[in-house]
Amino acid sequence: MSLSLQALARQLEQAIRDSEPFRELKQAYEDIRRDEAAYRMFANFRDIQLRLHEKQMRGAAILPDEIEQAQKAMALVQQNAKLARLMALEQQMSMTLAEVQHIAMKPLEELHRSMMEGD
Amino acid sequence: MSLSLQALARQLEQAIRDSEPFRELKQAYEDIRRDEAAYRMFANFRDIQLRLHEKQMRGAAILPDEIEQAQKAMALVQQNAKLARLMALEQQMSMTLAEVQHIAMKPLEELHRSMMEGD
Ligand SMILES: [Ca+2]
Ligand SMILES: [Ca+2]
Repeated sequence: MSLSLQALARQLEQAIRDSEPFRELKQAYEDIRRDEAAYRMFANFRDIQLRLHEKQMRGAAILPDEIEQAQKAMALVQQNAKLARLMALEQQMSMTLAEVQHIAMKPLEELHRSMMEGD
Repeated sequence: MSLSLQALARQLEQAIRDSEPFRELKQAYEDIRRDEAAYRMFANFRDIQLRLHEKQMRGAAILPDEIEQAQKAMALVQQNAKLARLMALEQQMSMTLAEVQHIAMKPLEELHRSMMEGD
């Protein structure tokens, strides 16, 4: 990667760290870490999600019990104000990063589109 | 998205447009566009890839004939110097963009990792 591209990527990294969505998300994680019940619920939900994701990745069948367990864990998360806020902030952060990604991908998308139009 | 993040994303977009990998890739596409035989091969290969990708996306079975057709199209592409160069430059561009993406994702990755380590 050229120096200027790398320097810009690092500036972008710093701007993301300093951004409102990232600072709010970080604060939300710290709030959960300090709340034992919320943290247990969060860790349980994350472990279930990771297990299901791993099974999907290796093409293993997901059992009805596992789906029920995941739905229950999600319902608990949504009932907890700190966790519900975390989920909303994760979504907001994802959207911000997707927007950055979309802008950075424009040159390549335009190039590919111009080749499609040339048919 | 905050103004500073958006401004940086746009600077990054411009830096990608100005980058060596992007300019080389653009030139490679222009070379192919001006070479009728290479362009036909390219369009055929791209159409086959798109068709297979669409089938995969909707979970449809890919027939042995289709795999053979895709392999033949790929072999033709690799035998053509302009197309082989295009494939190599596409790969180089992808790696550059993945590196930018990796740097931009660091804050979120660190945050998630810090929550994993907190168990
Ligand atoms: Ca067309
Ligand atoms: Ca741990």
